[in-house]
Amino acid sequence: MGGALEDTICAIATPVGEGGIGIVRVSGAQAIAIASRLVRLKSGRSLHSVRSHTLYRADLVSLQGSSAGPDGRPLAAGSGGAHSSLIDEALVVVMRRPRSFTAEDVVEFHCHGGLLVLQALCEALVAAGARLAEPGEFTRRAFLNGRLDLAQAEAVLDTIRAKTAAGLKLAQDQLRGSLSSEIEAIRESLIRLLAHVEAAIDFAEEDIVFVQQDELLAALQRIIDRISDLLETGREGRILREGAKVAIVGRPNVGKSSLMNALLRTDRAIVTSIPGTTRDVLEEILNIKGVPVRLLDTAGLRDTLDPVEREGIRRTRLATEQADVILAVIDGSQRLGPEDHALLQEAKGKPSIVVVNKNDLPRNIDLAALPGLEGGTPTAPIVSVSAKTGAGLDELREQLRVLLVRPDLEASEGAVIANLRHQSALARTRDALLHAVDSASNKLAGEFVALDLRAATDALGEITGAVTTDEILERIFSEFCIGK
Amino acid sequence: MGGALEDTICAIATPVGEGGIGIVRVSGAQAIAIASRLVRLKSGRSLHSVRSHTLYRADLVSLQGSSAGPDGRPLAAGSGGAHSSLIDEALVVVMRRPRSFTAEDVVEFHCHGGLLVLQALCEALVAAGARLAEPGEFTRRAFLNGRLDLAQAEAVLDTIRAKTAAGLKLAQDQLRGSLSSEIEAIRESLIRLLAHVEAAIDFAEEDIVFVQQDELLAALQRIIDRISDLLETGREGRILREGAKVAIVGRPNVGKSSLMNALLRTDRAIVTSIPGTTRDVLEEILNIKGVPVRLLDTAGLRDTLDPVEREGIRRTRLATEQADVILAVIDGSQRLGPEDHALLQEAKGKPSIVVVNKNDLPRNIDLAALPGLEGGTPTAPIVSVSAKTGAGLDELREQLRVLLVRPDLEASEGAVIANLRHQSALARTRDALLHAVDSASNKLAGEFVALDLRAATDALGEITGAVTTDEILERIFSEFCIGK
Repeated sequence: MGGALEDTICAIATPVGEGGIGIVRVSGAQAIAIASRLVRLKSGRSLHSVRSHTLYRADLVSLQGSSAGPDGRPLAAGSGGAHSSLIDEALVVVMRRPRSFTAEDVVEFHCHGGLLVLQALCEALVAAGARLAEPGEFTRRAFLNGRLDLAQAEAVLDTIRAKTAAGLKLAQDQLRGSLSSEIEAIRESLIRLLAHVEAAIDFAEEDIVFVQQDELLAALQRIIDRISDLLETGREGRILREGAKVAIVGRPNVGKSSLMNALLRTDRAIVTSIPGTTRDVLEEILNIKGVPVRLLDTAGLRDTLDPVEREGIRRTRLATEQADVILAVIDGSQRLGPEDHALLQEAKGKPSIVVVNKNDLPRNIDLAALPGLEGGTPTAPIVSVSAKTGAGLDELREQLRVLLVRPDLEASEGAVIANLRHQSALARTRDALLHAVDSASNKLAGEFVALDLRAATDALGEITGAVTTDEILERIFSEFCIGK
Repeated sequence: MGGALEDTICAIATPVGEGGIGIVRVSGAQAIAIASRLVRLKSGRSLHSVRSHTLYRADLVSLQGSSAGPDGRPLAAGSGGAHSSLIDEALVVVMRRPRSFTAEDVVEFHCHGGLLVLQALCEALVAAGARLAEPGEFTRRAFLNGRLDLAQAEAVLDTIRAKTAAGLKLAQDQLRGSLSSEIEAIRESLIRLLAHVEAAIDFAEEDIVFVQQDELLAALQRIIDRISDLLETGREGRILREGAKVAIVGRPNVGKSSLMNALLRTDRAIVTSIPGTTRDVLEEILNIKGVPVRLLDTAGLRDTLDPVEREGIRRTRLATEQADVILAVIDGSQRLGPEDHALLQEAKGKPSIVVVNKNDLPRNIDLAALPGLEGGTPTAPIVSVSAKTGAGLDELREQLRVLLVRPDLEASEGAVIANLRHQSALARTRDALLHAVDSASNKLAGEFVALDLRAATDALGEITGAVTTDEILERIFSEFCIGK
């Protein structure tokens, strides 16, 4: 897998569908030679001699004989068709290496939109010697040729898939290297430390002290703290990148469905009506003040006369467990019942908001005396709303947002961990470092400390791809679409 | 509607979805000025001074204060955000008028794919003074600025929507002006003729003969013949552009469904799995040797024990009436029954193929003596197939293709009428000309002939847009997607 780097690859680079412009991209050592077989520049010039990064008008033709349309028939439909046939009139641009996305020679064709034209063009390029690109292969080449590190390559995908402005900013920061430079800085300290430790081993008999044990321990601790700080951003980073799970729970008739619908009506993210490349189920994602939110559908679960009432409770509990935040809904117009008390109890210990609904009706409960809250670790905020009139919904959004993502996180320029792969690599780094601290504290031989430090350095290197394997690359780039 | 031509417009030009590259396009007198407010070229140059048609790397930022993300919040998420915030790193290209698609100043931004980036960019452009483009507005401007005529503009859309290679070739021919030049040639002859007739009116009293009546009639007839020839291509043009309707009919158990499945398996057009912009039902389109074909689902209608047997017959008849070609299926392993005879009778008078199925079993009918065929106008071809083994299917495809589109039509370089609007305009032209022939034959005053000729010229002018109305433009361009 991954394909040979010496191949010249081609693919449709724009999304599939109807649009004004469709782009086919070719990259590799033979890009210009292969493309020139199809290109008839209006100016009569050769593609080999055109200026880099400049758009030229051209006719694109499929080659004689080998020219086959997407249906396997010659595009020059008809009987003979010994002459070459026109695919489209287009703009062609050559981007000479290394000044291109892949750092290889790249040719782009800007055609009229329409899948058939773009497919015919890809077929003609393949007939002329190119190979169809695998998913993410352009970005993979950009990585292998040093144009991007691995965290930046992943940020390309996050940029494409961003669901809200805040998620986009996160991806853009990562694309510009904010995470990479933080990780590389830590990795350099680790490598320096490792050098000292190894020097101490090499010259152990000469009684030169390269690094004092307490200095070593202090340095390790500083690095562990930095990594812990990064890991701390993981939850919020993941929420910004993938969306938070929010469960609306409450006994029947408190207005869970109305609340859900009120939020859906005003905050439904526009992005989500686009089918993903995998054509899975469309997900409904809300945009709560810039934070992507998925509502877990527990509404109505207890409303049914379910023969197995326990199933309803089980599912509510499951949603509660999965949720990042719980909205515990109670009906402010009625006295609290035992079910309400049970729910407020369940919500304890998790970030939650008590939503007192139906504030358009006379209130029948005392907010100040709400039970089950004073016991929870941080006291859950109480918001009075009316799903019917919309009153209080904006405060609910604001409270939800604060619970999900600290406002200062987004504003900060510091690195944020939004990717599970990065989180796992960082956790392994920290484990190895804690092990090193152990070894050093117990005055084990320097070799043991060095071993731990090397494991830590390697784990950290996986994030930017300084250390990587084909397997890691395969996993990352197979998530990309073809043409990226 | 249509929007002021002096506005500077912007839109996402690539299809909506995930892809490697997404383009936002700006066109109009202020395109460069507006774009430059967002563009920070890496080279530090001003967008006003860059070379036309050349790609430059740039940061795209949203303006201070007014910068709003797609969720209505400042893109520079966080508290203050008084500074401008980054939308994306992109390639920017200026195409100076008149060397652009619209013949106006055009700026394109080539961003990372992803809807959110492109939406944020459009919002920023609107904040900077652009207006969101209406559907087809770029192409409309290309038309209004004389870059394309109306038939060519329509060919742009046909190119995007082409379903098979043959349909694509038709669209490409039209885009290069094959239809336009034919129409314009006819229109010029008409205008010359009209000039003669009008001169004859002006100088009627001076007894100068500008055009002999028999010459006029002969000239009119030549034009009528040319238009009739063009109208003749209408059926096949429509089939190539929109697809042919083919009905499979036959009594129960002759293998209609198997035949349909066999064709679906091998010839299903790849293009059809793409959702249309309107998100209607996905249509299954077969690609029969380059001709797009929709199978009308009559298979199985008579197989059910329908309480109202007549409903089945009614629907089969409806499909038969709508169909461009009928495949009348009989079971070659069994003697013909009365239902078979009825069907063969029904198929008469329409282009049809008698499909003798199950040729993997011993034959029990005499093909030479098939009834109900010698009566039809052109004798329907008989093809012996096995839907089960696939034998004979290729001959069936070939026969179907010949019935649908004459091979020479596609190969010819002549103009083809594929568009109902063109067909209607041509028919009105011909009607007016026939009227003129009438007037001239009856020696009515020259004014009447001139009136008819002018009506004919105007109707013909609608095709290329030499004569047009806002209403016509509205109807045409509202079919386009936004960004085209």
